[in-house]
Amino acid sequence: MKSYQEMSNDDLLALKAELEAQYKAFQGKGLKLDMSRGKPSAEQLDLSMGMMDVLNSSTNLKCEAGIDCRNYGVIDGIQEAKELLASMIEVPADKIIIFGNSSLNVMFDMVSHAMTHGVLGSTPWAKLDKVKFLCPVPGYDRHFKITEYFGIEMINIPMLPTGPDMDLIEKLAGEDDAIKGIWCVPKYSNPQGITYSDETVRRFARLKPAAKDFRIFWDNAYSVHHLYDDDQDVLIELVTECEKAGNPDLVYKFTSTSKISFPGSGVAAIAASDANLKEIREHMTVQTIGHDKLNELRHVRYFKNLNGITEHMKKHAASMRPKFEAVVDTFDKELSGLGIGEWIRPKGGYFISFDSMEGCAKAIVQKAKEAGVVMTPAGATYPYGKDPKDSNIRIAPSFPTTEELALATELFVLCVKLVSIDKILESR
Amino acid sequence: MKSYQEMSNDDLLALKAELEAQYKAFQGKGLKLDMSRGKPSAEQLDLSMGMMDVLNSSTNLKCEAGIDCRNYGVIDGIQEAKELLASMIEVPADKIIIFGNSSLNVMFDMVSHAMTHGVLGSTPWAKLDKVKFLCPVPGYDRHFKITEYFGIEMINIPMLPTGPDMDLIEKLAGEDDAIKGIWCVPKYSNPQGITYSDETVRRFARLKPAAKDFRIFWDNAYSVHHLYDDDQDVLIELVTECEKAGNPDLVYKFTSTSKISFPGSGVAAIAASDANLKEIREHMTVQTIGHDKLNELRHVRYFKNLNGITEHMKKHAASMRPKFEAVVDTFDKELSGLGIGEWIRPKGGYFISFDSMEGCAKAIVQKAKEAGVVMTPAGATYPYGKDPKDSNIRIAPSFPTTEELALATELFVLCVKLVSIDKILESR
Repeated sequence: MKSYQEMSNDDLLALKAELEAQYKAFQGKGLKLDMSRGKPSAEQLDLSMGMMDVLNSSTNLKCEAGIDCRNYGVIDGIQEAKELLASMIEVPADKIIIFGNSSLNVMFDMVSHAMTHGVLGSTPWAKLDKVKFLCPVPGYDRHFKITEYFGIEMINIPMLPTGPDMDLIEKLAGEDDAIKGIWCVPKYSNPQGITYSDETVRRFARLKPAAKDFRIFWDNAYSVHHLYDDDQDVLIELVTECEKAGNPDLVYKFTSTSKISFPGSGVAAIAASDANLKEIREHMTVQTIGHDKLNELRHVRYFKNLNGITEHMKKHAASMRPKFEAVVDTFDKELSGLGIGEWIRPKGGYFISFDSMEGCAKAIVQKAKEAGVVMTPAGATYPYGKDPKDSNIRIAPSFPTTEELALATELFVLCVKLVSIDKILESR
Repeated sequence: MKSYQEMSNDDLLALKAELEAQYKAFQGKGLKLDMSRGKPSAEQLDLSMGMMDVLNSSTNLKCEAGIDCRNYGVIDGIQEAKELLASMIEVPADKIIIFGNSSLNVMFDMVSHAMTHGVLGSTPWAKLDKVKFLCPVPGYDRHFKITEYFGIEMINIPMLPTGPDMDLIEKLAGEDDAIKGIWCVPKYSNPQGITYSDETVRRFARLKPAAKDFRIFWDNAYSVHHLYDDDQDVLIELVTECEKAGNPDLVYKFTSTSKISFPGSGVAAIAASDANLKEIREHMTVQTIGHDKLNELRHVRYFKNLNGITEHMKKHAASMRPKFEAVVDTFDKELSGLGIGEWIRPKGGYFISFDSMEGCAKAIVQKAKEAGVVMTPAGATYPYGKDPKDSNIRIAPSFPTTEELALATELFVLCVKLVSIDKILESR
């Protein structure tokens, strides 16, 4: 097969005419599909409906410590919830604090707290002339929105197949004490589905940032969100790794059950060193009367233990796998060898990342929209919404049905081809 | 009856000997009672157990707008939750945003947000040399802890039977633009149970603070927490009142169902002007993926409407009334006319406030503790924990049984008498 670059102008024009006819046919179908939202499908949510039954008016609502979960108290989570979430993210139960329904909210609060109060006694970031964060790209738009909101300057760090470019991170963080943190989705990363290599994690643990109050914001959002039973990525546990490296305070590790039980009605948590947790508890004691212990109890009684979560996530995988495969198989079949795009076949997480030729992503997303398929806006995976190469597009396959997704992907591929032909012709 | 001040030294010493014998007898009982915590009793929590049944695996979990409450979305609360909580605090449903489980958390976040981002375009408070808050005293310790945490200087404002001293508030807030807010519990205030008079509320609405970003933090925690069916305090609605006075942005009004359904598993809300709500929504969009809509739905399906809440709160009143009366009746009977203390008989809320002679509160609380009765620490009702007169003691009657409470109050009264006698003798 010839790549598009190798084709003559005439051949490209002939192909374009053919593809345009197909595109017009799509437009005639009046599609209304959405591949923009990283949210579970109704089918996935149905998997957790049993959770609605575990607590009722005749249930014992005391936790194992004998505390009435209906009342005030227990600021940092009931013990059995700590054990459940700690086992899920592979830390000891005394290295975790349970929060409310949103790990994003915990991350926001950690940045906000650092702005007003500093970190373990450091100068509050709001009092500094300049605060910067490292942002592996492409990445999660809502991370970037938090740092943007606080006026923190974001520096792009390229993602490699092994995770973010550690040479660059070590150099920048080591030199500049205005750099206070880095956003990471280390397992099945958003949007590429890359899991950081052992070497990458170990280099993170050994990082020697110039700023003592530098923190790795380690968003372990997809720790158990595998697509396959027999082919799973493995991520080294960073809290323990930092401790071993003599850098115990370097990391805040976040997790939640938002995409395990119910988005918005899950349980979030942070894992960190004793010193970090102590500071967080002091902060929490002022900020809140505590989180929803009945919901913690609901999760514990339903999932029981890590095995319960693992079995539950196999059902999620069964729902997600055909969707991911529908998209990536189509890419493989329709785009391989054409030289107009690159993609990764993820083994878990919630997204597929597509990189078009430079300068094509916005046009592709626009073209898909004009035929009734909504994608995540091009640029969203970069700080400030600015993809310098205008090439990355995030695809979220979870919400539509497999049939809808197959159709939407077919259209998407068509848009990639059409926009790429225009780009090539334009450049000649 | 003679007041203690009118009694001779000999008479006081004789009385003291008698009271000390009673106190020793109490110590012999090995009591372990707690009047320190403003938390509902198990009996009260049992009243809401029906809420654990309204959602189950066969329930329709869509809200009236057809949105699946299990999934992401609806950042500011489902419409029917807005309507329920808005009706409870007498504002239109479009003037309210629903939050998570803790109104204290919302208040904290509003102060934190003002510190980092200012209020409606004002200079972030963290960038100012000095920020001050007015604090009606005695007041709620956790309010004061928030402003203390952010390094905000707190200025005591005396409480009068009509609410805080408005002359002083108008003068201070009108003159000093470093004064950015005031903490208020306007109905059945914590700890005195005072409801602000119509005139007080109207003067709040007409306040002309020097600082444009001054906000009234109006913590309407006890809006429906009456003790009596036929004798209830009425509070004028401040959001509307501010609008009428041409000061729409002046107030943030907070509420929650923490002491209606379950503490820690309730639903909180803020009511404010359109401009304030717009800013809060922008802030929320960065901070969180949204709050727990299933819990919102649970509350709506259980209480249905304001009438449902009103009927429910009558049951709470039936549990609380005898406890409040046990305390205040004992005060009336044992302390009236002695000139060694003052108290108010509240018609609602969660607390009874006792003012001892100056310089006696700490000693009274200590003496009660030594006989097995834990009170809220003296001073807790003042900013920085410093009661300049050392006289205010907050009594929380909800948690113990009526029998326990009667016993604890008996001991408390004894401690008041003993400490007062020492004080009087010492001063002669």
